[in-house]
Formats: sequence, structure tokens, C-alpha cells
Amino acid sequence: MSLFDSKLSVVNVGLGSFAEAIAAAGGEVTALAWAPPAEGDRAAGLELGRLVNEPRVEAANRIAFAAYREAQPVLEGIGLARELVPRMGGRTILHAGPPIAWERMCGPMQGAVVGAILFEGWARDAGGAERLAASGEIAFAPCHHHGAVGPMAGVISPSMPVWAVRERATGGLAFSNLNEGLGKALRFGAQGREVIERLRWMAKTLRPTLAAGLALLGPLELKPIMAQALHMGDEVHNRNAAATALLLKQLVPALLGSKVGRRQVAATVAFIAGNDHFFLNLSMAACKAMLDAARGVADSSMVTAMARNGVEFGIQLSAFGGRWFTAPAPLVEGLFFPGYSVADAAPDLGDSAITETAGLGGFAMAAAPAIVKFVGGAPADAVANTRAMEHITLGRNEAFTLPALDFAGTPAGIDARKVVDTGLRPVINTGIAHRRAGIGQIGAGITHAPLGCFTAAVTALAEAVAAE
Amino acid sequence: MSLFDSKLSVVNVGLGSFAEAIAAAGGEVTALAWAPPAEGDRAAGLELGRLVNEPRVEAANRIAFAAYREAQPVLEGIGLARELVPRMGGRTILHAGPPIAWERMCGPMQGAVVGAILFEGWARDAGGAERLAASGEIAFAPCHHHGAVGPMAGVISPSMPVWAVRERATGGLAFSNLNEGLGKALRFGAQGREVIERLRWMAKTLRPTLAAGLALLGPLELKPIMAQALHMGDEVHNRNAAATALLLKQLVPALLGSKVGRRQVAATVAFIAGNDHFFLNLSMAACKAMLDAARGVADSSMVTAMARNGVEFGIQLSAFGGRWFTAPAPLVEGLFFPGYSVADAAPDLGDSAITETAGLGGFAMAAAPAIVKFVGGAPADAVANTRAMEHITLGRNEAFTLPALDFAGTPAGIDARKVVDTGLRPVINTGIAHRRAGIGQIGAGITHAPLGCFTAAVTALAEAVAAE
Repeated sequence: MSLFDSKLSVVNVGLGSFAEAIAAAGGEVTALAWAPPAEGDRAAGLELGRLVNEPRVEAANRIAFAAYREAQPVLEGIGLARELVPRMGGRTILHAGPPIAWERMCGPMQGAVVGAILFEGWARDAGGAERLAASGEIAFAPCHHHGAVGPMAGVISPSMPVWAVRERATGGLAFSNLNEGLGKALRFGAQGREVIERLRWMAKTLRPTLAAGLALLGPLELKPIMAQALHMGDEVHNRNAAATALLLKQLVPALLGSKVGRRQVAATVAFIAGNDHFFLNLSMAACKAMLDAARGVADSSMVTAMARNGVEFGIQLSAFGGRWFTAPAPLVEGLFFPGYSVADAAPDLGDSAITETAGLGGFAMAAAPAIVKFVGGAPADAVANTRAMEHITLGRNEAFTLPALDFAGTPAGIDARKVVDTGLRPVINTGIAHRRAGIGQIGAGITHAPLGCFTAAVTALAEAVAAE
Repeated sequence: MSLFDSKLSVVNVGLGSFAEAIAAAGGEVTALAWAPPAEGDRAAGLELGRLVNEPRVEAANRIAFAAYREAQPVLEGIGLARELVPRMGGRTILHAGPPIAWERMCGPMQGAVVGAILFEGWARDAGGAERLAASGEIAFAPCHHHGAVGPMAGVISPSMPVWAVRERATGGLAFSNLNEGLGKALRFGAQGREVIERLRWMAKTLRPTLAAGLALLGPLELKPIMAQALHMGDEVHNRNAAATALLLKQLVPALLGSKVGRRQVAATVAFIAGNDHFFLNLSMAACKAMLDAARGVADSSMVTAMARNGVEFGIQLSAFGGRWFTAPAPLVEGLFFPGYSVADAAPDLGDSAITETAGLGGFAMAAAPAIVKFVGGAPADAVANTRAMEHITLGRNEAFTLPALDFAGTPAGIDARKVVDTGLRPVINTGIAHRRAGIGQIGAGITHAPLGCFTAAVTALAEAVAAE
């Protein structure tokens, strides 16, 4: 009886309607957000139960997370994909996300493939390029299968220039193509004449110029640039204004010290200075290098890649090396360029979610309150997104500190178990491509990884651990 | 009697000890921070009372604040002080803060004057320079008396290069010297051989190089650069990393397009890229130009300058043009370079508080959480400092938005009445010079303007308004 005489302090877990009734009756109630694991998927929840506090998984995650955290990516050079990227002979074209056949590719990816074929000179016009792509004579493969990453369509063909980033602890190499700028760009599915001509200039002029500068600079540590950029309002995925400026500050004296002609240096500097996203591809290659260091640790539930091909969203776990777990790619909420809306948008696309996988991008959004002018929302959302990611990660990366959170390290090392358990899905800042080939970027926004790939990965891990 | 039967909700205004007693007795009490106007100075409080809600002052402040807010400072060029700054003939040396004679100057200002004399070749050694300075043959004057501002010692001599910033609405010109970098620098009182040689290089090589670049660029709008820097973690007083990088991004293509030799361009770029404070002096000249636009509005209590000579802190009110109201310069709390402490520090020094006067620096600290690693404190202090300044300013400058405060404009236009009324003193981020000549910078920190100059200014304004 004493329960009814004393004052009640109620904590309500889960369904909000119970709390509302108590509050309506004048009671004090604290509502605690909670949902059943795996959004109520009983089978997945039971598989998850086999992995929670499992000592082998805990030990494996410590190893994988330490390898990621201690990784030291350095920019080693730049060259043509066919010279640097393994197995790029013949008519190979890399694309973003998990594997996908030409017929199933989304519009912007098909547009970018057509552009790459024209750039390579394998066909005379768009119609011929489409026929060649459909003929089976092109070897399509995910960038990730070749140690590479590419934003949006992520299309890399043999004659395109790529950055080469070395991870010093493991010696591994990661690659990315070079950023073309916003708007009409191959990675957003545009393939008009100016797009192809820009790609030719990048291969012919930009590449050797940067190579000459890098040769003088020597291997360039990327983590310090990224860390400094986080103190200057970047999250190094959709905001790279500071990182690009910091790169330029190091590059210009080297370019001037090189033997490259003055007009070529001027054109290169103007190109980089005119594109605040230029550093993005370096950020991605650095993140890929850091996460590759954490690959292949048996029993680890740490996510080592998140990537989207515009149709499917795929993730990889450390335990399973290159194996993909996929789910349909989500749409992106955000800010659209004038004249466009979500009805025009391709689903989530690109390897750039490698930055979120490495604790940057959406995970480090607290560092970049001004980004909401580009992706939508309010500055408080930026901080809230970072805080939410603390619940699904293995720890913090003290190399990447966030001033607004009292210089706490960014939450990093996504634990697939925690995603399934909490239902909190990784947040991703991303560009938005038009759903049809040939048009280009139409906006930028925020999306979340679909839960399905995490439940599939956790189920597979539970089976693998049980079978040992 | 009902007072003693019902539950009390107490608001305690002022002295905290009353609130403590109520809380100790189990009562509910909200303590409201409040102090009597003018920190209890009855005479000053009565003078203030004559100005509060005074229609002439309100109207004047609207005019002055609008002029400041609508000001458009553009970088017009660079040249030698004797060519650009009015009345710089003969042996004139400008210094920071309100007027001060050689004998009363603080150590670092004397050191900088000696350095300037050596740089000009008016004496052969430091002893000769000191004798010349004491002889009365040098015309000393505040920078502000010549439309100029200089950080720390603020010493400008005729052969030094200066930036020229034009305010488009009024046509007025503001000047500042060029930033030498941190550590051993003339503005911190160092005057060794490397300091003088650097000044010579700046006059002989840096100045014409920048002039050639600026000639190609054309007049450069400074507010957009400052606004963008606020979105990149700068407050454009003690943190100018982004603003400097943004300036460089615009300058480099122009320098490469000019006729200046490649080695000279490379040396110039390396100098700017190596000094994250390079933009400071441009920020100061821009702030001076914006505030000069608000000068000379009769009855206005808006502060148009705060400046320190290391002995006295001076302010100017719009109503009184160039008249100074002074109080002893405070000490600076902050972070000291290894081996130094506050015992080694000169009092607050420099014209750089012109940035705070314009709503930047400490007033815009919410934009620059990472600055606390340089000036001390925690990121929350940075936001709190900006919020506090909202109580002593006339409005917000919507050209300078602060992402962390939901893109609110920075609080700007210090109202001397509000400072005296609330006792909230303007917060200033600043460098710290060694108290002795010849040593240089020993740290950076935060200080507050002394109340005395504001009570003096308010008293004078009350008398002037009453006499009309």
C-alpha cells in the first residue's frame, strides 16, 4: 500500500504513450528512448544475443580498433590508375559501392560509365559507349575490390589519375580518384563535353603538376591536416574548405620550387582554390587506408567499409575481409539546388561513407556546425548527430578532436552489434545526384545506413563465432 | 500571515550571501547576478541615470550603429607609410593606444621604438636609438591619430609598409602595418638583427610582391573573407588561420599572374603560409574602417575604439571623435610559453582591441572554440564570452554570423552606458609581450577592458548632453 501513499518517480522505457498517460494524470515521468534490438526482428535479436559480451568478439574488436587508431596514412604520390592500382589492365572500370552489373546500375553511375568510356576513347559517342557497357566487354568491379574509393558514382578507368596513400604501420596502399568540383561532374553522372575535357586536363596537366610538387614535398602526413581541419569547421566529408586550403598552403611553395612551368602551376592552383571539395578524395583515401589496417581480424564486429552503388548499400566487417552485406540504398533528405526536389534524386550513392566509417563526416559533424547550410538542419543537429554515434562505436579517435565537445575524440569504429542493438543507424553527410544519367549534382543532405546490412552481418558473425 | 504558510519562491538580486542563507534554511531561491551600476560609484551611477533611455542618445546610437553595420571595407593597396599615411614626414613614429611619452612607455613599446629607429637608420645602435628617442627629436603619436592601427606595440615608422583599406560608404581610409609572425617580432618589443632584417625584407620584397598581386586582384572585399573565417573557427583577432588561408587562396593566382619573379613569389607565399596570424593586421584595418564610419555622431555612446599602450587602456566614443578616456591597462590571464609567467608580462598592449570594438575577437569567440588552446579556458567559455557581450552592445552584425549560436550575428557596437550599468567589461583576446624590451611574445590570453574609461566617458557624455 505504501506505493500509493508516496510520491512516484516513474521511468518509462520504450513506447511513449505509456509516459503520456502518467504525465496526463499529473505524475512525474522520465521517458527513456528505447526500441527492441533489430527493430523487433526476433531472429536477428537472438543472433545478436549470442555476440553481446562475447569475449572473442570483444578481444577481436580491441585489436581491430587499435589498428585503425594507430594507422598513419601518408600521401605518397599520384599517377594513372593503370600504373598504380592493381589489376587495372584492359577495359576495367571501377565503381562505387558493392558489386553491380551494368543493367542494374543507377542513372548517374551509368552516366559516369559512359563518360569514362568516352574519356578512354573506347567508343565514339554515348550510344556506342552504352552498347559497349552492355556488351560484357567491360570488366566492372567495385573500387573497394582494388583498394580504392571514389565519391558518388566512384567511376575510375585506367587512364584517370589517382592519389596513392600509404598506411605506414601495415604498408598497405589505398587509392582515390581526383575531385572534379561541384555541379556537372562525372561522379554525379554528367558526361558532357566539358566534363570529358576537364578529365583530360586533370590527367594531362593537373596530374604531372601535382606529382612534381609532391616529389618535392615528400610523403605528406594526412591525419594532421584532417585534425587541423576539424578545428576549422570541416568534417572532411561534405565540408573540406579548410582541409583544401591547408593542402594548398603546403602545395604552393612546393609547386613553385618545382620545374613545372608558371602557367601550369597557376592553372593547378586556380583549379584547387576554386574547389572547396578538392581534399575530399584525399580524406577518403586516408580513411580507406586507416580502415584497411583494421581488416581481417577474425570475430571482429567492427565495420571496415560502408559504400553505396545507388541501388544497394553495402557494409563490410573486419571479420569477413571483402564480404559484402547489403540492403536497399536509402533516399537522402537535404537541401536541393533550385528547381530540383527529392523526386529527382538518385538513392544514396558513393564510397564516401568511408569517412563516416572512420569516425569523420557525419560522425564528426559537431566540428562543422556551418555545414548545415549545405546539408540542412540546425547547428544543434550537428552536435546531436555526433553524440548519437557515441552509442554505436567502439571508442574515440584522439587524433581527431572536436572543439565543441571539449576536444573529445570523434566517435569511431562502428560496432555492427551496437547498431543492431540500439537501432541507431550510422549518420552520413552526402551529395545528391540526379537519378538520370548526364545531369549531375542536384543537392546535398543527410541519410542513415539501412539496418538490414547490419542485421545480416551480425547474423553471419554469430554463425561464424558459433561454428569455431 | 499567509506569507509564512505558503511555499516561498525567492529571487535574490545581487549579494549571494542572502541567497545562501535561504538555501541553508531549506528554501527555494534563484540567485540573480547583479551589481550596482558603475560598481557602486554613486556619482558615476547618477551621471549614467541621466543618459539611460535619453532619446538623443538612442537616436544617435541608431545612426552610429547603422553606419558601422553598413560599412564596406575593401583592401585597396599596400605602400610605404610615408607615402600613404597622412602626416608621416620627418621622424614620426606611431605607437599603439592613447598618447604616451617615451619615458612612460612600457618595455616592449620602447623596444619596438628602438627597433624602428634602427630599421630607419636614424641611429647606429640601440644606445643611440634610445638617446634619440629621449631627445625629443622623434614625433611620437598614436596610430589612431593617423587613421592607423597596429597590434601590440603598434610601432609604425615612415619606411614600413602598410595596408590601405578603403571604407566604401564614407570613402575613409584605414591603415595597418604588416604582420611579422609570432615570437621574436618588433610588435612584441624584440629588435634583434633578425627582426630588423625581416622588416627590411618586408619593405623591399614582400611589399612590392603583394602590391603586384593586389593590382591584378583589384579592390578586395574584406567582410566576406572575415565572415567565412568565422565559419571556419577564427575570431579574426587571435585566430586567423582560416582567414590567412582564404587570403592566400585569392592572392596566389594573382601573384602567379603578375610579372613578379618566381623566387620572389615563392618567398612571399612561404612567408604568408608560415604565419597563421598574417591576416590579423588586415582584420584590424577593416575593423578600424568600419568603426571610423561610425565616428563623430553627436550624443552617441557607441565605442569607436579601444586601444592600449601597455600603461593605459583608452577608449573613444562616437560622440567625441578622437578624445581618449583612459584607465590603467590591466594584466592578461592566459597561457604562457614555457619558462614564462604572468610576472614576466607587460600589461595589456596594442590597437588590436579594435577587433573587439567591431564585434569580433573575444566578442565572436563562439565561432572559435579551438582558440582556447591558445588563450586558455574551455570551449564553453568561448560561447559564454560572446553571450555576455550581448548585454553591452547595441545590436548584432548580421554580416558576421556565428554557427554555434544558430547563425546569430555577432554582438557589436559597445554601448558605454551598458558597460557602466552592468559592470560587464568588454572581453579581449590578446597576445602577451614580455615586460622588458628586446624579448618578444611570451604567451596569449584573455583580459577585460577596465571600467574606469567607461565611467569617465559616460560622465563626459552626460555633461555634454545636459549642456546642449
